[in-house]
Amino acid sequence: MNIILFDSGEFSSPACDSLSLPQADPRAAHIIDVLRRKPGDTFDAGLIDGPRGKATLSAITSGSAALALTFRWASPPPPLPPVALIIGLPRPQTARKILNEAAALGVSEMHFVATERGEPSYAQSTLWTTGEYRRHLVAGAAQAFCTRIPRITFSNTLAATIAALAAERPGARRIALDNYESPASLGETLATGRHSAFVLALGSERGWTAAERGQLRAAQFDFAHLGPRVLRTETAVTAALAQVLAHLGRM
Amino acid sequence: MNIILFDSGEFSSPACDSLSLPQADPRAAHIIDVLRRKPGDTFDAGLIDGPRGKATLSAITSGSAALALTFRWASPPPPLPPVALIIGLPRPQTARKILNEAAALGVSEMHFVATERGEPSYAQSTLWTTGEYRRHLVAGAAQAFCTRIPRITFSNTLAATIAALAAERPGARRIALDNYESPASLGETLATGRHSAFVLALGSERGWTAAERGQLRAAQFDFAHLGPRVLRTETAVTAALAQVLAHLGRM
Repeated sequence: MNIILFDSGEFSSPACDSLSLPQADPRAAHIIDVLRRKPGDTFDAGLIDGPRGKATLSAITSGSAALALTFRWASPPPPLPPVALIIGLPRPQTARKILNEAAALGVSEMHFVATERGEPSYAQSTLWTTGEYRRHLVAGAAQAFCTRIPRITFSNTLAATIAALAAERPGARRIALDNYESPASLGETLATGRHSAFVLALGSERGWTAAERGQLRAAQFDFAHLGPRVLRTETAVTAALAQVLAHLGRM
Repeated sequence: MNIILFDSGEFSSPACDSLSLPQADPRAAHIIDVLRRKPGDTFDAGLIDGPRGKATLSAITSGSAALALTFRWASPPPPLPPVALIIGLPRPQTARKILNEAAALGVSEMHFVATERGEPSYAQSTLWTTGEYRRHLVAGAAQAFCTRIPRITFSNTLAATIAALAAERPGARRIALDNYESPASLGETLATGRHSAFVLALGSERGWTAAERGQLRAAQFDFAHLGPRVLRTETAVTAALAQVLAHLGRM
């Protein structure tokens, strides 16, 4: 955690300028045990999807077992890069890594979709049903010293997601990664023009079906590969995002 | 494991065409339990730093608790991309991820060096002292369906490593990642010319010292950053490698 993030819902006053953080909260342990802050000390704090600023540890109230924190907010970080990811629903352990890494690298939105070759039971994971996924987004943003977290969906079909993004991001460059039917690599594909927004689709572990390729083509997706080496999904996401973010001048 | 890798030292005959694999070996469990191979079935196999080919499970000898395997070798994979990584010795858990991911993405060599702001005790980790690091390289190569594993050093200084690479890779483009003193991003830096080989240096978690920056500059390294977001070392390695491999036409 390079910045400690708080949710506006945690504050009792709408001014978001003070808070009592229970010592049982993992952030309290981080402030005391890792950052080694004492009463009067400050640390970097942020309001999720809001400003960054400084928090002061005003007091440790041992009776109520809580940290009294006060905040001084500055300006918010720049908007997230205009990149939307579509990802065939991966096994939960892979999804956790992708949520964290893509939130750290910086994307605006991530859509996890059921695919024909995917495993439908993955959608029933507690990762999605308990809201645990949000914790990984916040951890990724905190790593990146950012307050902004990507928008997430995880129960829409590929077709519905493609259609929604066609309406919401009409000018974006659309690229689907596919190791089997791509005429060129992602690097070659990006070199053919300059684009200012992207929709990037990655299939599930076993790839796209012919029907899914048809849907993607009909929605103006071009296909690109990441070279002959077989990469784990989380490595492919980071490698593809790095190229797209560099193209956008963000990396 | 997309290909199961064997070491020439495991074969009793120099022809490397048959082998008795103890059932206690993790590869035996993978062949039986994950690939579900029965006697007579084949699977993808490779000889480390040698050819790919097909292995046949000839028999399961329950008395000696071993799999009898025979091999038919084809051609070796293409050489690894001409990229040498220099990495400030990271905590062992981070090093494991980097070893695996960089071996999967494809680099020729990785040099883990002590840095002034690094933690010297990391070099005493069992990861390095027991040779465990090689297991992560083999796993990364097997993921990538490749037999070639990067050359590794982990007990040389930054100065000695820079000097050795200056002699061994005189024409390579040299870039050091540095989030603090870089005039341009890696993407911008790569866009300034075409290069066919790279030496890429990443510092330890707390970055380079002024003395180390001086050593790198004197050895013709240019400095580049990966944008304003603070990335974990393993994410930075993958993101930087993806850009360099794309530049080389490998991704």
